[in-house]
Formats: sequence, C-alpha cells, structure tokens
Amino acid sequence: MKRTEIAALYGSPETFGDTQVTVCGWARSIRDSKALGFIDLNDGSCFKGVQIVFTAEKLENYKEIASQNVGAALRVTGTLLLTPEAKQPFEIQAEEITVEGASSPEYPLQKKRHTVEYLRTVAHLRPRTNLFNAAFRVRSAAAFAIHKFFNENGFTYVHTPIVTGSDCEGAGEMFQLTTLDLVNVPKNEDGTVDYSKDFFGKQTSLTVSGQLEAECMAMAFGKVYTFGPTFRAERSYTQRHAAEFWMVEPEIAFADLNDDMDLMEAMIKYIIKDVMACCPQDIDFFNQFVDKGLKERLEHVANSDFVRISYTDAVKLLEKNNDNFEYKVSWGCDLQTEHERYLTEKEFGKPVFVTDYPKEIKAFYMRLNDDNKTVAATDLLVPGIGELCGASQREERYDVLLNRIRELGLNEEDYWWYLDLRRFGGNKHAGFGLGFERMVMYLTGISNIRDVLPFPRTTGSAEF
Amino acid sequence: MKRTEIAALYGSPETFGDTQVTVCGWARSIRDSKALGFIDLNDGSCFKGVQIVFTAEKLENYKEIASQNVGAALRVTGTLLLTPEAKQPFEIQAEEITVEGASSPEYPLQKKRHTVEYLRTVAHLRPRTNLFNAAFRVRSAAAFAIHKFFNENGFTYVHTPIVTGSDCEGAGEMFQLTTLDLVNVPKNEDGTVDYSKDFFGKQTSLTVSGQLEAECMAMAFGKVYTFGPTFRAERSYTQRHAAEFWMVEPEIAFADLNDDMDLMEAMIKYIIKDVMACCPQDIDFFNQFVDKGLKERLEHVANSDFVRISYTDAVKLLEKNNDNFEYKVSWGCDLQTEHERYLTEKEFGKPVFVTDYPKEIKAFYMRLNDDNKTVAATDLLVPGIGELCGASQREERYDVLLNRIRELGLNEEDYWWYLDLRRFGGNKHAGFGLGFERMVMYLTGISNIRDVLPFPRTTGSAEF
Repeated sequence: MKRTEIAALYGSPETFGDTQVTVCGWARSIRDSKALGFIDLNDGSCFKGVQIVFTAEKLENYKEIASQNVGAALRVTGTLLLTPEAKQPFEIQAEEITVEGASSPEYPLQKKRHTVEYLRTVAHLRPRTNLFNAAFRVRSAAAFAIHKFFNENGFTYVHTPIVTGSDCEGAGEMFQLTTLDLVNVPKNEDGTVDYSKDFFGKQTSLTVSGQLEAECMAMAFGKVYTFGPTFRAERSYTQRHAAEFWMVEPEIAFADLNDDMDLMEAMIKYIIKDVMACCPQDIDFFNQFVDKGLKERLEHVANSDFVRISYTDAVKLLEKNNDNFEYKVSWGCDLQTEHERYLTEKEFGKPVFVTDYPKEIKAFYMRLNDDNKTVAATDLLVPGIGELCGASQREERYDVLLNRIRELGLNEEDYWWYLDLRRFGGNKHAGFGLGFERMVMYLTGISNIRDVLPFPRTTGSAEF
Repeated sequence: MKRTEIAALYGSPETFGDTQVTVCGWARSIRDSKALGFIDLNDGSCFKGVQIVFTAEKLENYKEIASQNVGAALRVTGTLLLTPEAKQPFEIQAEEITVEGASSPEYPLQKKRHTVEYLRTVAHLRPRTNLFNAAFRVRSAAAFAIHKFFNENGFTYVHTPIVTGSDCEGAGEMFQLTTLDLVNVPKNEDGTVDYSKDFFGKQTSLTVSGQLEAECMAMAFGKVYTFGPTFRAERSYTQRHAAEFWMVEPEIAFADLNDDMDLMEAMIKYIIKDVMACCPQDIDFFNQFVDKGLKERLEHVANSDFVRISYTDAVKLLEKNNDNFEYKVSWGCDLQTEHERYLTEKEFGKPVFVTDYPKEIKAFYMRLNDDNKTVAATDLLVPGIGELCGASQREERYDVLLNRIRELGLNEEDYWWYLDLRRFGGNKHAGFGLGFERMVMYLTGISNIRDVLPFPRTTGSAEF
C-alpha cells in the first residue's frame, strides 16, 4: 500500500477518517502494557507526529514491536480514527507494523531533554528532535519564501562565484583555496609563493560577498538577487558568527536608497508572513518553548510601518540617553548593539532604518551624499536582535568612485571591471545584504547560529 | 513618474496603449536622421526591448540623445502606441529622454556579432547581449522551477556545508582551504603540515557533494534536497567541466530506485515545462539562433514516458552495434557518451534510465543487488546530451555497507556518522544528483559550460 505522509493526514483528517492508511516514520517513543501499546511516530513531513495504537490482538508481531528501541524506522498500516475529544485530532489503529530499520539502546536521542551543546555533537541525528526539526523546516520555508518573493517581483536569481581571484571585496578576512602541496609549497626566487603553479594560476579565496558581481548582473537585468554561501575567516567564538553562512544580496538598477528600503521592508514582511502561514506548528513550538514573545513580535513587525531616521538624528536621540550606555554616543562613532536595540525597542518599538552614516565607518562603494560627509547607506534594526540588514545606494559616478578607491589605498587595477559599470551606462542603483541565518534566528527565537545551520562551520570546528 | 518595466508592457500592451509610461534601460542601438531617431531600449526585465521613437520636434535635447553611444542608460517618458501591423506590437513615442549614465565609443558590445570567446573576456558586460541575457534568465527560471517542484512535493530544502573536514565523499579531487601562511607553512616534527594551527584545527576542503549530509537530513524529514555550489579540482579543459558548479541532490527515505526514477522523471518534465512557459521569448531565441531542434526536443522529452532498461540488457543491445563504436562494449565496462547517445537517440528516441550497473564501476554507498554483482544505480540518458542525472538507492544495511568500505580500503573512522544512520532507524532510501549547468545547457542548447555560468571558474581561470 502506498505510503501517506503525516502532513497529508493533518491537512485533511476528515478525508482519511475511518480509512486505511500506511505511514512510515521514526518512533519518538514506544510505550506498552501487556497487550496494548502506543507509538509516537514522526516522519518529518510536518512538525507533529501521529499516535499509533497497537494491540496484541491485531498484531502477530506485537512483542517484536513493543520491544523496539526509540529511533526505529517503522512502516504502519492501520485505520485512521478521528478523535475530536482528544488532544490529537486523530490516531491510527495499527493492523500491521513492520520494522524497516531497528534502533538500539545506544541511540543518542532517548526520550529526555538534551542540551543543545550535546546535540551539536550528534548533528547527524539532531534534526530528529523537535527543536532542530522545527528549526530546519523553518529554514527551508524561509529560503523558499525568499525565492518566491523575488520571483513574484520580477527579479532574476544569479549565482555569483564562490571562488574569487581578488580580495577586493574588502568585507573581512578570507579563506585561501589551493591545490598546491603544502608540504612543499612552490616558491618564486624572491621567496613568495609561486601561484602560477596553483589550480587557477593565481591566488584565490572564498567569497565574502557576491555584491560586486551582482551589480554587473543588475546592469543587465535591472533587478537581481543572489542567495548562496559566503565565508569569513575571522576567529570568533560568539553566538552570532559562523565561518560559512548564507547571504541574500539583491541589487536594483534605476533605484535609490528609498527604493531599497521599500524593498527590504516588503521582503522582511513577506518572509515573516509566509513562514508563519507555512509553519504554524513549528512557530507555535518556538513560541512555547524557546521564546515566549516570538509570535507577538513577528506579527508586530509584519504589520508595522518601519521608521526611517538619519544617523545624525538618531545620534541626537541617543546622546540624550548616554548615561545609560556603556559606550557613549557621539557623531562619527559606529553604533553598538546596545544603541541599535535602544532605538528599535525603546525609542520606536518597531523596526527602524537608520540612514546616511558617516562615510568613514562605511564601505568604499557607498554613494557619497551631497554633504560630502555621509553616505547613502542604511542599517535595518529590528526589536529583539538589532541589525538585520545592511544596505546602500552604490556610488555610480566614475570619478567619485575612483577617488574613494584611491583615498582608501585600494588597488585600482583590481576594480577595472567594477569601474567599467560606471563607464558604460551606469545609473543610480542600490542593494542590500541579509544574513540568512540571522533571519532564521529571528524567525525562531534561537539564539545561537550553530543551531540554525545543519552542519555549522565555526572557528576550530568543521565536523561531519 | 514611476518607472514601468518592459516585461509589464509585453504582459498587457492593451492596458498601456495610448497612455504615458516611463521606461528605463540600456540602448542596444541608436539610429537617427535629421529630426527623427529610433532607440532599441532593453531593461532586462524580459528578453525583448522596446522601440523608442524620438523627434527634434518633441525633444529639446534631441541632439544630445541622438549622439549617445550604444550602452547608455536612458530614462524615457512617452506615449505607448500600439502597432498591430508592425513586427513589434508597440513602440513608445518619446516626450522626454534623460541620460542616466552615458556610454562611450569604447563600449565593448557594439552592434555587431561577437564570438563567445571574446565575450567571456567581458563577463561583467556580456549579460547585456541577447545570448547571455537569455541564458542567465533561463538559468534563473530553471532554479526557481526546481525550488517550486520540490516545495510542491513536500521536500525540505537543506543547506549542506561547503567546507568539509574529511575527503570521504570520494567523488573527485578537492580544493584545500586554509588560513595558514603558505610562505611559512607550520610543520610537525615529522615534516607533515601542522593543521592544528589552521582555522578549523584540521585539514579542510571544498565539498564535492552534499549527499552524505543530505542522507542525515532525509532520515529526519523524509524528503529533502540540496541545491548549492560544489567543486572539483580536476584539471580539465573540456566544454562540459567547470571547477565550480551547482548541483541539485534530492534524497528520499522509505523509497527505492523505482521511486527515485519516478521522482527524476517528474522533476525533469516539470523543469522543462515550467521554463518553456516562463521564458518563451528566450527559448524561441535559442531555437532560432543556437540550436534549431531545441524546442522540438524539449517538448518531446516533456511528453515522453522514459524508458527503463537494465545495464545488462543495454549491453546486449549495444554489443550488436559494436562495429560502429570507437569503444567496444562488453559487460563490465563503463558506458561512454557514444553508447549513451546511441541508446537514447537511436535505439529508443527518448530518455532512458539504464539501471543496475556493475558494482565495480559505481560508488561504495550504492545498494548491492541480490546478484552480488550489480548495484541499484541508474543514469538518466537524454537525447542530445547523454547523461543528465546519476542516481542510486543507498546501501541501508550496516554490515553490507561496512564491508564495502573495508573492501575499497576507505577509512572506516571517517564514516562513523554515516554508518550511524544505518544503526538507528535506517531504511531503504535513494537519491540522485543533477548537475544544474548541464540542465541549463540542455534547456538552451548552449554547448559550453562557460557560457551558462555568470562568472565561470575553470582550470587556470578565475577572473572577475
């Protein structure tokens, strides 16, 4: 008999009421008394499992089933019984149960509470727990929501390269990649590495951002986005940093910072609404067991008009509160998380775009404002987390961009193709970066990035 | 006035007929006589551009516009005039044109035919040509079709890691990544590299496949897929190999090779139908200028029942034709492209699954058949290209898998977590790999992988 997924049963229990179904999944728990047993069977098609009732009367192999260990893979055929008065809306009364794959008493996910630290050591099994099953389902739903949002809005999805031949992105420390023999690295006469013998004939690294390449594509398609892995070789042991993570980087032509903020606001709201609609059981779980204020906060953000305030005005507001900050604020300083959270949580109580930062604390490619002091950049701050996205209008003026590159002592030759975009049909354009894991943390209330990445790569750790 | 995208005009020309619109884009060509000019303006929102008619009578800056170079970014406001009798369904009669960004006579994409070899040297600009604009639009549409297909069918999307700590995937040569100083590589006393000083505290590489990690996730979610970049450090100069490319790798639990073939067949048909529906202008272009038989072939594949034949039976068929093959076929040999194409093009004239290959020519994780000689693996062969997907049922029996690992001299310890999946609730499961670029080549008729990757990375080349 063809297998039915548990998600389908929850989708329309009435359809399946009193009919025979076959379900396959893993036993989360098995309880039995003499001739009656209960299995909590989960197949991962949705957050919830289904209760299997099995009896010695109906099952020849009752004893075999009753003696299975937690984690066993079972195939169950039985009749679905609607139980409107019970906690679960239905159960399955088994007529046949076969063991697809046994488990053992050594199964690491016994029916008790485990710490997330322990569960990271069994990353190959932890997606079978409630917490990680829900986290990775939300991650999947959020990824699809992002693709849907951009598709519905006419964006072209572009795969910018992971391998990069120059370190001109300037967003952080990079991993080098090589096929050279590290025991005997070939050298030039002056003692430097002879990269002509390396795979690409030059030094190469893993990308820290697809933005510069995305700009090339935006100058052909008008609206593009990237969504792929990026890398930082920064030795960091915080809860918020991983060496490998996914980024979403849209880029829009014929658009300024206001258009960019409109886009960000629409995207964040879309993701929240879509994930809440697609994963209600998971969000309920997080709201109950991980972060009590989660649903309220998400709903609030999805229905707020985001505030827009200049850095200069934000600094004025923050200065009034300097007594309460560890780091005192003054014009020119970078905002710390305490300041960001004050603005979005205390001052406004909703998401805030802080715009037009001092050029000294922002990247070379951001558009210089007419005041010659600030750039058309913005950070999106949200309650509960602080910065969620960073954005800017890009410098489209060839001379101004070239000046900035020289001012900062960057290597002009590395940017020939990026400068070309300003020589041939350049135009006002803008984009932003969303750290995807940060978005998933925001959607779930999970506070450690290691727990929203299936197999996290962090300083000193690349297991599985 | 708010900008309208050209795709929206093509979407419902009647709506816009005789109304004023503003479009922004890049001039593909500019022609003018004394007081009348024509611009072919393209904004990348769809394959086709729109003809702008501009006159000295209406435009104060007529001369400025007429003297613009190809590639200039323009903003045009004018009245859309339906032209049912002409080749294009409408044109825009300009009332105002402003130059957002000029171009120059040095613009590399002058109005003439360029070789693809030349265009690869200007990869930052080539998406503005018909060929590459269409190629990358189809690439985007195909990517979205894949996400939609799996989402509609209840799959969870998983991001398997790019950085891998072991070389146990065994699918090809790998890139090493490191933060060590290659001029002074730290060494152990025995002269080997001291990886304890490296970023992850061990030797790490770029993944060649997400399959093993995807299997972990399938054992929790039932049905998962990966879609991300993978890497091969193989020195190869063919038209079909890149060092960095994207792969789709679904994995399904409680499923055998037949379920896997059903899934592959459904996915391929879905992608073809979806892309043909979403990108008709692009597909028409490829059909006309790149590959005359393209549309017919795609439609044929989308509507065929795929053939399923065992390797053993396929070899019997091929042996009859050995006179015509460069490489003679006999049981036990790997099939070459000439054999694959003979089967799918000559023998059957439609897609073919060849199943149950000799275990010696396939990977260690493929399920051993009862004959002890073959494994439950299949390659999907399609007319015009040969192999499109490789698939297998995975060995779910702990002892059999362990035997294979030992037989092949692999390092058992590397596989502890992969073996664990067989100790705790293992079950029949299967999956396949689709090289995404190969799919895009198949959809477009483009014969070189360098031309379906926005910024290709190949042996000796990592530009931009």
